[in-house]
Amino acid sequence: MQNTPLHHVVIVGGGFGGLHAAKALRHVPVRVTLIDKRNFHLFQPLLYQVATGGLSAGDIAHPLRSVFARDRHVSVLLAEVVDINVARRTVVLRDGSLTYDTLVIAIGASHQYFGHDEWAPQAPGLKTIEDALEIRRRIFLAFEAAEREADPTKRRALMTFAIVGGGPTGVELAGSLGELAHTTLKGHFRAIDPTQVTIFLLEGGGRVLPGFPADLSAKAALALRRLGVTVRTDTRVTDIDNGTVTMRHGDATDSVHAHTILWTAGVKAPGLGATLAKHTGAALDRTGRVTVAPDLTVPGHPEIFVIGDLATFLHQGGKPLPGLAAVAIQQGRYVGGAIKRRLQGHTPPAFRYRDKGSLAIIGRNSGVADFGRVRFAGIPAWLLWLFVHIFFLVGFDNKVLVLVQWAWNYVTRNRGAQLITGKDPFPLVDG
Amino acid sequence: MQNTPLHHVVIVGGGFGGLHAAKALRHVPVRVTLIDKRNFHLFQPLLYQVATGGLSAGDIAHPLRSVFARDRHVSVLLAEVVDINVARRTVVLRDGSLTYDTLVIAIGASHQYFGHDEWAPQAPGLKTIEDALEIRRRIFLAFEAAEREADPTKRRALMTFAIVGGGPTGVELAGSLGELAHTTLKGHFRAIDPTQVTIFLLEGGGRVLPGFPADLSAKAALALRRLGVTVRTDTRVTDIDNGTVTMRHGDATDSVHAHTILWTAGVKAPGLGATLAKHTGAALDRTGRVTVAPDLTVPGHPEIFVIGDLATFLHQGGKPLPGLAAVAIQQGRYVGGAIKRRLQGHTPPAFRYRDKGSLAIIGRNSGVADFGRVRFAGIPAWLLWLFVHIFFLVGFDNKVLVLVQWAWNYVTRNRGAQLITGKDPFPLVDG
Repeated sequence: MQNTPLHHVVIVGGGFGGLHAAKALRHVPVRVTLIDKRNFHLFQPLLYQVATGGLSAGDIAHPLRSVFARDRHVSVLLAEVVDINVARRTVVLRDGSLTYDTLVIAIGASHQYFGHDEWAPQAPGLKTIEDALEIRRRIFLAFEAAEREADPTKRRALMTFAIVGGGPTGVELAGSLGELAHTTLKGHFRAIDPTQVTIFLLEGGGRVLPGFPADLSAKAALALRRLGVTVRTDTRVTDIDNGTVTMRHGDATDSVHAHTILWTAGVKAPGLGATLAKHTGAALDRTGRVTVAPDLTVPGHPEIFVIGDLATFLHQGGKPLPGLAAVAIQQGRYVGGAIKRRLQGHTPPAFRYRDKGSLAIIGRNSGVADFGRVRFAGIPAWLLWLFVHIFFLVGFDNKVLVLVQWAWNYVTRNRGAQLITGKDPFPLVDG
Repeated sequence: MQNTPLHHVVIVGGGFGGLHAAKALRHVPVRVTLIDKRNFHLFQPLLYQVATGGLSAGDIAHPLRSVFARDRHVSVLLAEVVDINVARRTVVLRDGSLTYDTLVIAIGASHQYFGHDEWAPQAPGLKTIEDALEIRRRIFLAFEAAEREADPTKRRALMTFAIVGGGPTGVELAGSLGELAHTTLKGHFRAIDPTQVTIFLLEGGGRVLPGFPADLSAKAALALRRLGVTVRTDTRVTDIDNGTVTMRHGDATDSVHAHTILWTAGVKAPGLGATLAKHTGAALDRTGRVTVAPDLTVPGHPEIFVIGDLATFLHQGGKPLPGLAAVAIQQGRYVGGAIKRRLQGHTPPAFRYRDKGSLAIIGRNSGVADFGRVRFAGIPAWLLWLFVHIFFLVGFDNKVLVLVQWAWNYVTRNRGAQLITGKDPFPLVDG
């Protein structure tokens, strides 16, 4: 027998897409290199819980190396990809390079401010662990500063929160924040009453959760109102400056003073998408996502797959798939299977997304669930959300811990992860 | 009946001393203000577990506000004390001031480099959550960089760790690091073998754990050697420069190349101790600690108590009490009781420390315990350590979570909290 080198699959990104592609290749005779800038897989759907002090960062992160500890043919590489040499089938790292036989790009998306990057420091988005810890810091410091503020106008601004974007992340953040103020912080302060907060959820479209059926959007909006959230739809933010959010609703302009402003409105593909398009001639959509063929490859480059949030895949009717974990997971598994079939000499069938339903949670005891013909809201949706999300957490220890933490929060309405941390441990004076 | 204002107790510091003083005043007719720079109580004895990826920050921190949520006469203030006006009985904050009837100063200690502050950036100490996360970042990045390093000399330096100081923190860090390398990281790397690490524990005195009996020090040293730790006693660090630790043992000088250097050698009282001494004439010891009277007050100022690591209390035989959580807890409780007795018109008896024993843990399954006549080591000491520490964790949710996490780590030898986080998420290239 001849000793031919194993087919080398390089996967860029250890999010849902990349992780599940590598897992699907576990028992396939290939060599896999999984590259990520971070040493952990992040369970992004629960990131808002870290941002509102309900979970610790370690609860929703899992070291990539420990996932593949027993898979000797899978190597994890902590590195940053800066370019791709398509002709030489080489991935260029910030500090080295790597050749591939098959390349899977699964680097996800970051947020964008629609041409107003100057808003970023004032209105942080929620994509990374560091984002979540920064938002947690701002939320809890706002209450601390309000407790010590004598001036009623300033105190009001400190107790006003504005969340821009009414998608799942915005809805979950607003609900979680409403619950924090109305139940969790009960008794914590002496000078202020946390239930007197004002939380704005600002959505440019006609309803929150635009990806859900209209009746569930209405139920979500109602549940948010019960948690003290002021929902404003058809409302576009036109300026964010020094704690003032200016917005337009039809012809009317309004502004609010909010010390804490959070951004969940727009997504943008990272620069590597454009780099890839330049080298391959692939088409990019409006937000910079790479348009892929029915088998998730770059047209003309069957050796390059693009999956997850970086890919635009035109689903049956021609509507692109949403940027959901479920889509990335199915695409990752598909790619693993496609590589296996090709090595066996077969042509893989086109990717088909099976919509298993959508779920969003709105604070304690409330959520919305959409499974096509079956739709429901309230406690059943909340429970289903809880179990589905915990089931999909990667490590078993994470599952147990998150479940214990959640059960404890549920019974006691208490939260242990309300730490204010960061470089300046005492930034109250500066704002 | 006349409505006289309540006696106002101001406690500075929410560590073991301050927290237990405030708790002891729960049912005493006084008004309490607990001031801390941070919004949480930190369970410092487990900080080394955060530094080595065994626990999350949220597992060992508890929000001060939630501890006193039901005690309406206890206010928590997130503030920094910069001065004390003893004549006016006023605490000066960075942004305001506060008058007291009784003042309790319990601000703890920070680390010192014996006149070599230039070593600090290269050899971080372990006092705060931020310290622990920075050390965790350095440890895990060192393994990541070693995995990618082709040069054997550089790789050796990346896999060499030097811990300066053989007290409980140094011993526990070294043991935990040894265990991380020898069991937890099994299978995580492809190019390096983590069991090939070199871990130096450098102690200036004649044995590790100088606060313990000599036979237990010997057992601890043996347990450390089994975990692959090289223990060097009677060894003083004379220089730390660019990854090289120079040390002197008798007349001999030696140096090692260690990419990761951790400092657990010296403690120093914060500046507020000197400020207080200046205003009251109180004596300071060599490390800046305030010498207190038998009732833990500043001589001549019965309204000012100093407790915990900031205080030097000459115990019966004249030997100062060690800087242990147990000492601070007993002193905090004593102060609460003393204030109560005074308000009832009695004079409190002098403080007496009851030594309930000392415990230190050395990796998995091993520890040393000293209870005067009863001394033991190995698994029983380890189990006792585990339960004593978890029992003293402040919040019930923390106890449950830490116990679950520990049980899980114990069974699987796995760790979920190995995140590399921080401002620069990808600092490999820079070092």
